[in-house]
Amino acid sequence: MATHTWTLTDTTQALDCDTFEISAREIPGTGDRWSVVKQTLHGGLCEGVDTVEINNGRMQLVILPTRGMGVWQARIDDGVLGWRSPVRGPVHPAFVPIFDPSGLGWLEGFDELVVRCGLGSNGAPDFDASGRLSYPLHGRIANRPAWKVDVIIDDSSGTLTVRGVVDESRIHFQKLRLVTAITTSLDSTSFAWHDTVENIGGKAAEMQMLYHINVGEPILTPGSKLVAPVASMAPRDSVAMEGVASWNILGPPEPNSIEQVFFFQLAANNDGQTQVLLMNPRKETGTAVRFNVRELPYFTLWKNQVAKADGYVIGIEPATNFPNPRSFESQQNRVIQLAAGATWSADVEIDWLLDSAKVAQLEGAIQSIQGATQPAIHHKPQAGWSQ
Amino acid sequence: MATHTWTLTDTTQALDCDTFEISAREIPGTGDRWSVVKQTLHGGLCEGVDTVEINNGRMQLVILPTRGMGVWQARIDDGVLGWRSPVRGPVHPAFVPIFDPSGLGWLEGFDELVVRCGLGSNGAPDFDASGRLSYPLHGRIANRPAWKVDVIIDDSSGTLTVRGVVDESRIHFQKLRLVTAITTSLDSTSFAWHDTVENIGGKAAEMQMLYHINVGEPILTPGSKLVAPVASMAPRDSVAMEGVASWNILGPPEPNSIEQVFFFQLAANNDGQTQVLLMNPRKETGTAVRFNVRELPYFTLWKNQVAKADGYVIGIEPATNFPNPRSFESQQNRVIQLAAGATWSADVEIDWLLDSAKVAQLEGAIQSIQGATQPAIHHKPQAGWSQ
Amino acid sequence: MATHTWTLTDTTQALDCDTFEISAREIPGTGDRWSVVKQTLHGGLCEGVDTVEINNGRMQLVILPTRGMGVWQARIDDGVLGWRSPVRGPVHPAFVPIFDPSGLGWLEGFDELVVRCGLGSNGAPDFDASGRLSYPLHGRIANRPAWKVDVIIDDSSGTLTVRGVVDESRIHFQKLRLVTAITTSLDSTSFAWHDTVENIGGKAAEMQMLYHINVGEPILTPGSKLVAPVASMAPRDSVAMEGVASWNILGPPEPNSIEQVFFFQLAANNDGQTQVLLMNPRKETGTAVRFNVRELPYFTLWKNQVAKADGYVIGIEPATNFPNPRSFESQQNRVIQLAAGATWSADVEIDWLLDSAKVAQLEGAIQSIQGATQPAIHHKPQAGWSQ
Repeated sequence: MATHTWTLTDTTQALDCDTFEISAREIPGTGDRWSVVKQTLHGGLCEGVDTVEINNGRMQLVILPTRGMGVWQARIDDGVLGWRSPVRGPVHPAFVPIFDPSGLGWLEGFDELVVRCGLGSNGAPDFDASGRLSYPLHGRIANRPAWKVDVIIDDSSGTLTVRGVVDESRIHFQKLRLVTAITTSLDSTSFAWHDTVENIGGKAAEMQMLYHINVGEPILTPGSKLVAPVASMAPRDSVAMEGVASWNILGPPEPNSIEQVFFFQLAANNDGQTQVLLMNPRKETGTAVRFNVRELPYFTLWKNQVAKADGYVIGIEPATNFPNPRSFESQQNRVIQLAAGATWSADVEIDWLLDSAKVAQLEGAIQSIQGATQPAIHHKPQAGWSQ
Repeated sequence: MATHTWTLTDTTQALDCDTFEISAREIPGTGDRWSVVKQTLHGGLCEGVDTVEINNGRMQLVILPTRGMGVWQARIDDGVLGWRSPVRGPVHPAFVPIFDPSGLGWLEGFDELVVRCGLGSNGAPDFDASGRLSYPLHGRIANRPAWKVDVIIDDSSGTLTVRGVVDESRIHFQKLRLVTAITTSLDSTSFAWHDTVENIGGKAAEMQMLYHINVGEPILTPGSKLVAPVASMAPRDSVAMEGVASWNILGPPEPNSIEQVFFFQLAANNDGQTQVLLMNPRKETGTAVRFNVRELPYFTLWKNQVAKADGYVIGIEPATNFPNPRSFESQQNRVIQLAAGATWSADVEIDWLLDSAKVAQLEGAIQSIQGATQPAIHHKPQAGWSQ
Repeated sequence: MATHTWTLTDTTQALDCDTFEISAREIPGTGDRWSVVKQTLHGGLCEGVDTVEINNGRMQLVILPTRGMGVWQARIDDGVLGWRSPVRGPVHPAFVPIFDPSGLGWLEGFDELVVRCGLGSNGAPDFDASGRLSYPLHGRIANRPAWKVDVIIDDSSGTLTVRGVVDESRIHFQKLRLVTAITTSLDSTSFAWHDTVENIGGKAAEMQMLYHINVGEPILTPGSKLVAPVASMAPRDSVAMEGVASWNILGPPEPNSIEQVFFFQLAANNDGQTQVLLMNPRKETGTAVRFNVRELPYFTLWKNQVAKADGYVIGIEPATNFPNPRSFESQQNRVIQLAAGATWSADVEIDWLLDSAKVAQLEGAIQSIQGATQPAIHHKPQAGWSQ
């Protein structure tokens, strides 16, 4: 019983495997169905995107080292956990115009189940007084490739892990390093990641992180419900104001509708742990997202109830802050300060629920976190939360 | 007798052939000289550019899936139809700074015989009130790679076709899909394309298209003439005003001259078909471009009579509009509206004329289209046509 | 005895060797230890970067065709001449956001020993009246790939040369061509380059060049000294003003310090030749940089005495001008004018000194250049030198 580690990429050692495959038969006693496979995609916008696919025996997880260690999608049998973005990726960063002066070029690479927004900024585009872009939408990290990728198999715990290291460094400015370990257990239908962001520079730095977790069909369908233990909630703007009464229920796709965004602070257990659940109307299937409000104190819900062809999707977004422009979040003291050498870390778990019993159990668990806490539902944008 | 189809690239199927070659011997009865070959270029700015070269037995046509299915050049024996741009490509989009805040980065990738300008915009850079770029020069499509590429051989009609699909999608904004089929017949000296642009999004969208067809030496030489059936014409600006009297005659290369641009509406047959002809001074060789004014009602002539080293070239540009900034064209109602699922389409043919008889025949055909129509030649820029 | 030439890349011939290796045994009589090897790096930000490594038998020199023929680093035994940038490269241009509207994206690719800044501009970002970027920091050339690369072995002189050609062309704007020949002799500890910039366009053009030569540990350490024959010197700004008294001595890394930049005109021999020397405090090791003030009349010293993790480094920067914004340098007539077909050229040599005797000899040589020239040390920024 031991931990087995393979390094797939390490640019400091001039090491990068073209392809890699490890499977159950190579580690006796770990069952006979798992595998981890690295490939490189070719053609169109995908040209040059590396994928590392973990098959834990039941679920396949596609990880994208080329896109900041995002998780493209999870699959079980013929089912996909993810969404159908009007951008068909995964898209290589060379095709994402991240510094389009509008600050919105990031959208051209956006099609993953899990996208990290950060590290220097994570919100809406920010501009200086002359109208010049200072922070592009959702930051840089999703379009930065990992320079180190390891696969770690622990045959005592039965876990399969892909670890990646991604730097976001610019001399004179920030030097931030993300180390993520994405783990799933043999035959499970869940996966989790442990992220550490380190200020590898010699002076104080600032960071933001938001996990943009995107779920579409089939879990998302008219009548699907988001169950969350709410401490307080407010609409982001006048568009979301119109949707406050039904904030937790998904409406049908409406071609000309505009995204609704809701900001929350969530209730949590004594140790800060909390979770939210998206379930389909019949409560047969769903997705739970678990995290700790001490690490990720702000929560955003993105309801994009547009036509299916335009990307009918919900965004479940635990974060260090609200995804407003960086300068506003800074005024509100919602930017993480990291001294030289200091780290920030967080754990997030995604649980894919495939039967009514599990959905019911999760719904109950969230009600229990809600407990006696009376949710403060604001019907208008709140000063300090929205610009 | 049948249609034979090969798929070279389809990213939705994780399919992308490194190389591909099909030739006459593989389809009995189609002669013995044609071939279609896919390769990838390496080195310098060309690194990673895919080419698909059709040899119809007489003419070779180099198509660029990596650059939005542009046509790099045509060749017959030692002759080249195209031009000698000061940019030596074909250039991979990763080296084209399309969102340079000046909006002019597109120029660094510009060296093809046929470049599509579109789909969201096709004209001069457009800026918002703060001076921030909103639409870059000539749009995005020439720097977007095809995600699907097919080769189709029809041995009953004797045609060789390369079909490509290129998306220009940004969530919250446009979702436009170009499907082009570029076709040539065995042993012919012409080729044509049928383009369809579909709004694959769920709400109304807008589009523009301009075919930037660029011809230099040897057809272009001092005294070369553009023959066109003119309904009305106006210079774009004060620089072009100086050249109105000789708008259809090419002057010699002049090192410090500035491009002259003329805007037209062309006369056409009853069914809307029209054509223009560029011929050399002795009328021995030329190029005709055929299209339909119901599909492409506006025509632009770009005379770039600069030094050869700077790109002595003429641009023959049938389009849905004039290549002014997007906001001006919108005010003038020259932007195509596409409902969800709606399509726009156009056919264009380029005919490479290699003897005096064909040149004379084409010149006559254009005079016949002109017929009794008295061309309205404006000597100043026209309100509504120019800003 | 002859000159042997191999072409590794020539995009005009559709030629690009995947890998290349030539070594001493292939040319009898050239010793037994030299080699020239081309490889392509993979993984992370390095993906796709070509390197050509010259081993002259004693020193290895890593040249970067993909990054405008920069020199990544030199190595002798376990020692490295170069620096430890917080950006870990070499970085492929596709990952360098050169047109970030701030103009500072260049910094994300900056980790070489020798980086060329140019050709259209070489200084701080420049903006137009609306705040829109007109010239990004340090220009384009370091992020343009060579389209022609040759290896030249001269077995009579015992020299190993890598020659590269890099174009910086944009139709309607500049068409500039850099041809560089980087040469080292068998078993030597020095290397030199001869650069020619040609205006390959048909009309007058302008250019700038600055060689950003960056040295960190172990030569750079607190107490290291820059020895230079100074004609006149001035601090660039108020930050550098504070450091005038100790301009030539390196202080310790200070985490929150800000770069100090000093501008110079150097004394030179009658033929214009001059040199500067960076030596460690014990004068046991150092680097000399030799050039001609008729070619490179302006000299900049960049002292970046920040924490090691932030890039503790000195920049030794001979140039055609001071690296101020382009428009200011233009006002000061410090932009090179090139008529159509005209060329500019310069030679620079870097000498890696590995013993006290050589350091002492160089120090003496520089004192001899200084001779009776009394250095004019300005204690404030000078009008005409700084904005």
